[in-house]
Amino acid sequence: MKRKVTLKQIAKELDVSISTVSKSLRNSLEIGEDTRLKVQAFAKFYNYKPNNIALSLKNRKTKTIGIIIPEIVHHFFSTVINGIEQVANENGYSVLICLSDDSFDKEVLNMEMLANGSIDGFIMSLSKETQFKGDFHHITEVIDQGMPVVMFDRVTNEILCDKVIIDDKLSAYEAVQSLIDKGRKKIALVTTVDYVSVGKLRTDGYIKALLDNDIPFDENLIIKIENVDNCEITIGKLLEDKAIDAVFAVNELFAVTCIKTANKIGLNVPKDLAVIAFTDGIISKYSTPTITTVSQSGIKMGNKAARMLIDRLESEHGEDEEEENYKTEVIETHLIERESTS
Amino acid sequence: MKRKVTLKQIAKELDVSISTVSKSLRNSLEIGEDTRLKVQAFAKFYNYKPNNIALSLKNRKTKTIGIIIPEIVHHFFSTVINGIEQVANENGYSVLICLSDDSFDKEVLNMEMLANGSIDGFIMSLSKETQFKGDFHHITEVIDQGMPVVMFDRVTNEILCDKVIIDDKLSAYEAVQSLIDKGRKKIALVTTVDYVSVGKLRTDGYIKALLDNDIPFDENLIIKIENVDNCEITIGKLLEDKAIDAVFAVNELFAVTCIKTANKIGLNVPKDLAVIAFTDGIISKYSTPTITTVSQSGIKMGNKAARMLIDRLESEHGEDEEEENYKTEVIETHLIERESTS
Repeated sequence: MKRKVTLKQIAKELDVSISTVSKSLRNSLEIGEDTRLKVQAFAKFYNYKPNNIALSLKNRKTKTIGIIIPEIVHHFFSTVINGIEQVANENGYSVLICLSDDSFDKEVLNMEMLANGSIDGFIMSLSKETQFKGDFHHITEVIDQGMPVVMFDRVTNEILCDKVIIDDKLSAYEAVQSLIDKGRKKIALVTTVDYVSVGKLRTDGYIKALLDNDIPFDENLIIKIENVDNCEITIGKLLEDKAIDAVFAVNELFAVTCIKTANKIGLNVPKDLAVIAFTDGIISKYSTPTITTVSQSGIKMGNKAARMLIDRLESEHGEDEEEENYKTEVIETHLIERESTS
Repeated sequence: MKRKVTLKQIAKELDVSISTVSKSLRNSLEIGEDTRLKVQAFAKFYNYKPNNIALSLKNRKTKTIGIIIPEIVHHFFSTVINGIEQVANENGYSVLICLSDDSFDKEVLNMEMLANGSIDGFIMSLSKETQFKGDFHHITEVIDQGMPVVMFDRVTNEILCDKVIIDDKLSAYEAVQSLIDKGRKKIALVTTVDYVSVGKLRTDGYIKALLDNDIPFDENLIIKIENVDNCEITIGKLLEDKAIDAVFAVNELFAVTCIKTANKIGLNVPKDLAVIAFTDGIISKYSTPTITTVSQSGIKMGNKAARMLIDRLESEHGEDEEEENYKTEVIETHLIERESTS
């Protein structure tokens, strides 16, 4: 028996990227003619069968939703999945989950695998690498072939589809405003060094809140953490050298590390230092002191994404319809006040 | 187009359980003849197609592994998945994940869906409800049709297959022994009220460690928590009325709640109360004080489970082989000493 050759095997054999193989097989002009013809010849020789989504869509409904998320050891994504499962199960759909591991190649391979007849539509959050590369051809292709995609949280303007987001800028703005309302004057931002859209938006909200309150913006008060496991020194310097009185952290691991570091150098939280984190996580609920958070509403986000996908799957509109009416739903966040700011 | 009818739809239509439909379609004598014939007639009328795993196995390899886990908002299962992904990806396999949500019906439906040509083999941990019911026919069927299954953590002796476990009894024994070695004399066990095999084994290890050290076993020192969100009163009573000097908790949420409750009533951890938790979670690392844990080695467990499944998928043995040589691998745990016991 000749096994079916995969995109990955073709890429390895010809020493090109998976993206190049994928684009060459669709005859994309982005790829030079030599490479394109070589890939096509190789694929033909090995009897490579690209997805035929349209065919599988016509023949059957799987009543299954595919989810692609960047990582699983992250409470936010777990709560979104639970939210999707709730609405999916209520409506008779099963759910299949794949991890991209924040890798572009894994995202492409997983979409290829799932689109191949296993599911009716996708709910996905982009991998960091995909956002960095700005290469979304694998998603466009799936949509072009008639399979609906709903994006959540890490989305892109370059793809037309249904989306569910929170207003990261406004949420950050409100969190920082709440610190200012409590009399805090020197507020630091502890964030990540990645290319994820949400990080930029939260920084924008932080800066806007400061400026709207006539607090000068000092870029030395923004700390970008690469690895949470060795960020104590960086945070210690921030706390000792800058005499700040509040921290807005983009996740709860940064927030809890700020609290532990503050304790070590004799600062009291919340008296000397107020702390707010962006998160749906459980560390905030169980840390000492408990941490005030901006709830990301993962469950609501998952509920909404599933609702949008199922509505689109079950709508009566034919394929010919010109106007797609894609929507972007904004889920409200809210501040959960706990001991770290009171 | 007549949509494919599912097990679930048949069950709903005839007002019987999914298990009954599944068993009736396999003509199991466990089901009364009336019901069996009714289900079979209904399925035939609606052109229900059961899995034909054997056929799909002969025709193609999907190079995909299916995982079924009870829940996702649980750090242990997330780390096992990461461990499976590592070995799977190194060997060119993709991974599909389904949640049973600790429901027997969802476990059956998800196995049915995945076995239907999407994957080459399963790695799974049983749902609580499946363990309680003791109904494993869905797993037996898959194995009988030639699709390998590897079970981890929540396993059963009633199924012959490869398994990966930790020695829950020994691990609990060693944790309790370490408390005794530190001079603790009145040690409580904070555990769950479920039917999961591991809970029983950990209790056995706790009792054995006490008896081996000539400490009388007092069943009033075993607290069974139903819901972690309102267990503070139960734990408060234990701490105030029983004058205990150590707690062995079966998960980190129970442990951190013990610490918070102890603090509230003026007990110092670790001076007045030492705490150890079973977990791979991150709360223990970030709580104040940090919590000593028995590491469940989720990554290693996932690595090993994937290795065992891939070895079986790629072995040269034919289907006729009589002797299956199923193995149960025991992953070593180790104690991570932190502030809560020092």
